[in-house]
Amino acid sequence: MATTTSAIRVACAQTDPVLGDIAASTAATVDAIRSAADAGADVVVLPECASSGWAFADMDESRAAAQRLDGETLRAWQSEAQAHGLWVCGGITELGDDDRIYNSAVLVSPDGVESVYRKVHLWNTENDAFVPGDQGFPVVETPFGRVGMLICYDAWIPESFRSLALQGADLVLAPSDWVPNPHQPDYLPPAAHIVTMAGAQANQVFVASASRVGVERGQRFIGASIIVDPFGWPLSRAGTDAEDLIWADIDPVGSRDARRNDPFNRPLGDRRPEAYVSAAAAGHFDAAQAGATA
Amino acid sequence: MATTTSAIRVACAQTDPVLGDIAASTAATVDAIRSAADAGADVVVLPECASSGWAFADMDESRAAAQRLDGETLRAWQSEAQAHGLWVCGGITELGDDDRIYNSAVLVSPDGVESVYRKVHLWNTENDAFVPGDQGFPVVETPFGRVGMLICYDAWIPESFRSLALQGADLVLAPSDWVPNPHQPDYLPPAAHIVTMAGAQANQVFVASASRVGVERGQRFIGASIIVDPFGWPLSRAGTDAEDLIWADIDPVGSRDARRNDPFNRPLGDRRPEAYVSAAAAGHFDAAQAGATA
Repeated sequence: MATTTSAIRVACAQTDPVLGDIAASTAATVDAIRSAADAGADVVVLPECASSGWAFADMDESRAAAQRLDGETLRAWQSEAQAHGLWVCGGITELGDDDRIYNSAVLVSPDGVESVYRKVHLWNTENDAFVPGDQGFPVVETPFGRVGMLICYDAWIPESFRSLALQGADLVLAPSDWVPNPHQPDYLPPAAHIVTMAGAQANQVFVASASRVGVERGQRFIGASIIVDPFGWPLSRAGTDAEDLIWADIDPVGSRDARRNDPFNRPLGDRRPEAYVSAAAAGHFDAAQAGATA
Repeated sequence: MATTTSAIRVACAQTDPVLGDIAASTAATVDAIRSAADAGADVVVLPECASSGWAFADMDESRAAAQRLDGETLRAWQSEAQAHGLWVCGGITELGDDDRIYNSAVLVSPDGVESVYRKVHLWNTENDAFVPGDQGFPVVETPFGRVGMLICYDAWIPESFRSLALQGADLVLAPSDWVPNPHQPDYLPPAAHIVTMAGAQANQVFVASASRVGVERGQRFIGASIIVDPFGWPLSRAGTDAEDLIWADIDPVGSRDARRNDPFNRPLGDRRPEAYVSAAAAGHFDAAQAGATA
């Protein structure tokens, strides 16, 4: 990475992990990281559960494919980070120090693990194979700005992006395993792109989402990785249903003033928290559903 | 409206108000309401500031075109509501009972004013001509479900939709004056559609946004009104740059269980407020910008 600027080339690699096979899945990520390095990437984002596949039937299966933070996959990622002078962000099936199984994203520099995010919003049958993240939404300082992570379905819940942006995140890295969304019209992009573009725009952050391809137990994953600018528009998009690598050149720190002080377009700065109804004030959703109104 | 179901036909009319001319602007809305009635609408949504135009240079200009809630425009809307047995939601330049000028949306039934929303998030030079809304995000019970209102730029701030959804809103009506967004690629819909679809999807609400057309003081308004289902996909879309009327048949109450209890797609129900960083915890955006991190 250039030493006189925060400008970086961020890449997203969409791999096809092998369910339950850490060695094969990790090998696929190593190939992807090397391809990204060849393309000049300073940061490479890998999919959700890139270490193991995703479609675990239960907690026993996920546990059998889980690793601690010093496991085989993260050792490989750090080794590649050192070899190529880049950072890696990817999803792993994590065996926590509390012996629980998390769907985690890890940011790795040549020096080792820089940040861990445990998926807060579990989707669908994930609740059978993982426990929800217990450490909120961390944001860390890096040479290329403040970085936060989300995982897949988190992007559907606006508080995920917001929690990172309110901590000053410049760049959101989002390992994902996007699936087809029902009823998508042909003329529109995938639902995942809609919520990702909206999240970038509402929070004036760069977003790089790497999504896997392939099929596990009948569940198709679409790929369609995307890198989005802070105004909500795509910088680069991958194809669907095949391994792919995309990248974009961004300047998360150098763009900070332009992104956040524009008097005509600063949705993050235009918030009015005093007007909002919070969960605490309204009761949780179930209370609202039961009949609460203003 | 049928008496045995909450199913309704909701319409969005995109008019071209005349800046500063209440009589002409109101006449345009009356024509639009009658067209919607002819199309069988039970609810018709009109644009932001449909009573007056929008591009006021300062508070004196907006004040000269402002009305109280018993003014000419709302009397006309109630009269049409009575004549056709429908509800009207539209934007007015409101002279508040505190003598301040608000950019407001009003929901009118045959019985009169049912709800008033004063725009919370002012965009761009609106800050010169209006004061921000001071009454939060009201949600009211109607025969067709719980209804909330937003106005235009509010849709860019996710807390707007969320504040309504947490109060149980089934349907969000959004009088808007959408403008072109810089850098929109040809293959994507307007930014307004992106944030509206994301808001509908994240909150599992129907959204009907009526956007104006025309030009005021060099500012073009695009039209492109849209009605979106609770899964984030369009039910009906208007063209750009010409007066138009669209409608869709929806069942805000009858769809409640299907929308909100689907175990596979309930982003509103899947929230985990304990994990979120709030403005109170993180400090406001400016604090984050100044350097706060997790």
